[in-house]
Amino acid sequence: MELENYRKYSKMARGLEKADLVFKNAQVFLSQTGEFVEGDVAVSDGKILGVGSYDGKEEIDLTGKIICPGFIDSHLHLESTLVTPGELIRQAAQCGTTTFIVDPHESANVSGIQGIDYILAQTEDVPANVYVMMPSCVPATSVDDNGCALTAGKMKSYLNNPRVLGLGEVMDAPSVISGAVSMHEKLRLFEGKVRDGHAPFLSRGDLAAYALAGICTDHECVDYEYAMQERRNGMYVHIREGSAARNLDAIVKGIVENQTDTDGFCFCTDDKHIEEIRREGHINYNVRRSVELGLPVKEALKMATIHAARCYKLEHLGAIAPGYQADFVILDDLETLHVSDVYYRGRKIIRDEALEIKPCSLQLKDTIHIGEFSEENLRLIHPGKKAHVLQMMEGQITTEDVFEDVPRVSSGGTDYFVSDDTYQKISVIERHKNTGKIGVGIVKGFGLRGGAIASSVSHDSHNIIVIGDNDRDMYIAVQELKRTRGGYVLVCGGEVFGTLPLPVMGLMSDAGYETVNELLAKMIPKAHEMGIPKGFDPFITLSFMALPVIPEIRITPRGVYLVNEGRMLKTPFEE
Amino acid sequence: MELENYRKYSKMARGLEKADLVFKNAQVFLSQTGEFVEGDVAVSDGKILGVGSYDGKEEIDLTGKIICPGFIDSHLHLESTLVTPGELIRQAAQCGTTTFIVDPHESANVSGIQGIDYILAQTEDVPANVYVMMPSCVPATSVDDNGCALTAGKMKSYLNNPRVLGLGEVMDAPSVISGAVSMHEKLRLFEGKVRDGHAPFLSRGDLAAYALAGICTDHECVDYEYAMQERRNGMYVHIREGSAARNLDAIVKGIVENQTDTDGFCFCTDDKHIEEIRREGHINYNVRRSVELGLPVKEALKMATIHAARCYKLEHLGAIAPGYQADFVILDDLETLHVSDVYYRGRKIIRDEALEIKPCSLQLKDTIHIGEFSEENLRLIHPGKKAHVLQMMEGQITTEDVFEDVPRVSSGGTDYFVSDDTYQKISVIERHKNTGKIGVGIVKGFGLRGGAIASSVSHDSHNIIVIGDNDRDMYIAVQELKRTRGGYVLVCGGEVFGTLPLPVMGLMSDAGYETVNELLAKMIPKAHEMGIPKGFDPFITLSFMALPVIPEIRITPRGVYLVNEGRMLKTPFEE
Repeated sequence: MELENYRKYSKMARGLEKADLVFKNAQVFLSQTGEFVEGDVAVSDGKILGVGSYDGKEEIDLTGKIICPGFIDSHLHLESTLVTPGELIRQAAQCGTTTFIVDPHESANVSGIQGIDYILAQTEDVPANVYVMMPSCVPATSVDDNGCALTAGKMKSYLNNPRVLGLGEVMDAPSVISGAVSMHEKLRLFEGKVRDGHAPFLSRGDLAAYALAGICTDHECVDYEYAMQERRNGMYVHIREGSAARNLDAIVKGIVENQTDTDGFCFCTDDKHIEEIRREGHINYNVRRSVELGLPVKEALKMATIHAARCYKLEHLGAIAPGYQADFVILDDLETLHVSDVYYRGRKIIRDEALEIKPCSLQLKDTIHIGEFSEENLRLIHPGKKAHVLQMMEGQITTEDVFEDVPRVSSGGTDYFVSDDTYQKISVIERHKNTGKIGVGIVKGFGLRGGAIASSVSHDSHNIIVIGDNDRDMYIAVQELKRTRGGYVLVCGGEVFGTLPLPVMGLMSDAGYETVNELLAKMIPKAHEMGIPKGFDPFITLSFMALPVIPEIRITPRGVYLVNEGRMLKTPFEE
Repeated sequence: MELENYRKYSKMARGLEKADLVFKNAQVFLSQTGEFVEGDVAVSDGKILGVGSYDGKEEIDLTGKIICPGFIDSHLHLESTLVTPGELIRQAAQCGTTTFIVDPHESANVSGIQGIDYILAQTEDVPANVYVMMPSCVPATSVDDNGCALTAGKMKSYLNNPRVLGLGEVMDAPSVISGAVSMHEKLRLFEGKVRDGHAPFLSRGDLAAYALAGICTDHECVDYEYAMQERRNGMYVHIREGSAARNLDAIVKGIVENQTDTDGFCFCTDDKHIEEIRREGHINYNVRRSVELGLPVKEALKMATIHAARCYKLEHLGAIAPGYQADFVILDDLETLHVSDVYYRGRKIIRDEALEIKPCSLQLKDTIHIGEFSEENLRLIHPGKKAHVLQMMEGQITTEDVFEDVPRVSSGGTDYFVSDDTYQKISVIERHKNTGKIGVGIVKGFGLRGGAIASSVSHDSHNIIVIGDNDRDMYIAVQELKRTRGGYVLVCGGEVFGTLPLPVMGLMSDAGYETVNELLAKMIPKAHEMGIPKGFDPFITLSFMALPVIPEIRITPRGVYLVNEGRMLKTPFEE
């Protein structure tokens, strides 16, 4: 702080001069003590000067209201909301989230360093603190085909970027604990900084070895017991409540039942679609839901603020105290926890303020490269044996590997797999480098009948993924995504029912949230009509079926992958 | 961590190979969750690999015992224990303190940078983590005369020393909040690092301005309400329990009564004599006493470990989890909290192991420079008016400024102040630069009769301070300290009763703890016999009476100083 500024602030903090801005007569939530105290909050130049009794040049009366530090989403991917980053920030900020810890690993998987630069540039002057974790697993594993490889060498120049806080979620646990050179080069590069984890269900010893490598967070745990194992290993637990993965109830119930110290627990969304943010909220939803489950409101608010700030060493965020940044959520009361207003650096965030969508380079809008592709490529010979089937489960992104008999049909002397009410076909088509690789498998539980659903958003390599009950509709879906340079598509009875183009890296639309929302509002109900159970978000769940780091079975351009065994099958009928 | 090492550790953490060292069958205190869990702790090369079920090449059975992270003293001055730094560390480490956050501001006040280098060198290879905070207030204020001035420029080269964590206790609050250039140069130099405070009883606004300057700790608060004010301003509170200042009961009782979240509270000793460490313990005493006062043991242990580690950003200390340093306290049980053994980097600390006292340069052993000095210099003319008297108080280092009539005696036509049972004389003689400055004042409450007590340890400038009921004995005391190049002395009826020479900067003995202890064991009871109430540690309390940053009234080489008014009186009879 410049001395001249300090002198000015000091006079205001001491009440010798009027503060520039004072929030009067509030219940002030002090995350550092867990108290609600009555008083005024003095602010100047976006910085908090003091809490007490203050007069201001400008005064905002908060009688009857609560002022809290702005909320922090401790882990999210901006790309998953389908719109350009500024739009998500705008929506989430209106819900009280003023700090975003972003892992741009979707962009990096498609476009490498250029993808990361895109995210940094798009969020540079948004009304929120946006920090980036450098994607650690690009590609996510060696068994998949993505657009770019991000090595430690390529990351080095980002080390001194003040908006880069460390290494993003380390999904490749086997490389960590076995001591693989390229992984440890990345871990070492970020020594002293935060190294985020992604560690669903490691054994006790493996989890210790994983933490020993310096990885200190995880957002993948789905139950209380495992969350506590991570806490015991010194890790922060980011409780996730997103569109597809909803782990809050399970973990928070455990915290409430066991009266667990909330220290080290934070909130995140990971992947949350913009229409859901509008419907139920963002981190404010995590807070509200936790309180509904019986967590004391002060604990929920600490998790949403100071715990996350501490995790990421953001010493100027997460509390209302002298020197902290003036990011505030104003709550109407502690019962509804309704967000009345939000302030970023002391400036009010205007609800649904018009947003200018920042342009994107043409190169980043031309990333769908598929060469020869025909219906034939989707055919799956049935050798008369049992098949490994991806059993999809409502509300989960994990799958079960079920090995069973599947239906067949004979054609020209050969038996082929054929869909029925139980089983459908799933396929992934490599789309970055025109390699022609196509994997075909079988799913169960998704229930789609009479068409196909496809997406170029397909974690983490973002190839084209398609599920359908007939090859013709699947083919049409893929052709449509070639045409729109990425997107979501729903095909029904030989016709494209609807398409949401996502031309920015095949991940995001730059047509604006309203357009995206209209299209989704038309396509999603239709997808459910076509048989997909309500427990699935059709496109989001689809987008995780190609992610070969989550148990138990996945589809990749190289074939069906059995995650726990680390085994790739060219066809699902291998044993 | 080198990859080769990680690979080795990972195998041990996963139980694929025997760990080098395993603490078996313990109750493991996990400061990160506040839990006691049953298990083994695996260690290699001084690093914790995991907690679980492990076999070791070497095994230490802890059945029935508790293993905790090593304790942290979050703020202390090594010089105050009168022995060379290694000896204090040895004693305190046996009590379970394995990390020391040291402010060498006594040494710096006498010998500047050379004094700091002495502390760093003496503690370089002791069996404990010793970190240094760069003294911020050398001299403590402009109203005093010390040996050296330490500017931001002189500190710069210490910024990248991994053992230097930040800026030491900032005592000069007025310079901070008024925005004085030289103070803010120091604060700015350590931006991003820890800047320790020293903030007894600032007003609400002043405390906000003080915290706004980036100061984030305080160890001076003596009551719960003020401690909470500091917490609300985002500061850490170091609860002090030393030889002279004992604030633990007051603050911890408040925490217990109000069920206050202990987050942000740590323990420190500040100044604690070695014989007291031996008698009642070190940070383990703070823990035990807190539990006696009703604090849950897990909260007391968190304050002694992870809270302090977090405060000083020592991410490898304060917890038992993979990657943390293997510093342990073994407790016999949770009732007595008796320390059975202590480990530093996985190696057991041998009780009273022989210690080689590291040599000290001759220059640092020749720091008492007093020129002409006679009994005449101690005479105090009584103008027949009331005097400002230093009212000393048992168990406190603060004083009260009482303005009252004091006894006099006539000699050669002039009235002089004369001691009686209530009032005695106090004097400070400048000893660094032979300036001849001598301040004379009057004390009450100390009760010394029939002699004089003197010390070259006299915070923070470490001039010679002497209290006596007659000028002859006071003179003899000062002459004795000239002879021994510093120390403690007790003079009784014209004779030196005992002297503890402290030749290292006039602050420390290099004759070994046993010698120091023997001499103190002889001198302290005699001092009490001579009238000093049991509520005072005679020498330690004496050593604070010249500290012009603590209310309300002090003696300096320039005269009597009224702290709250910031006013220097040449004689105590000024109004």
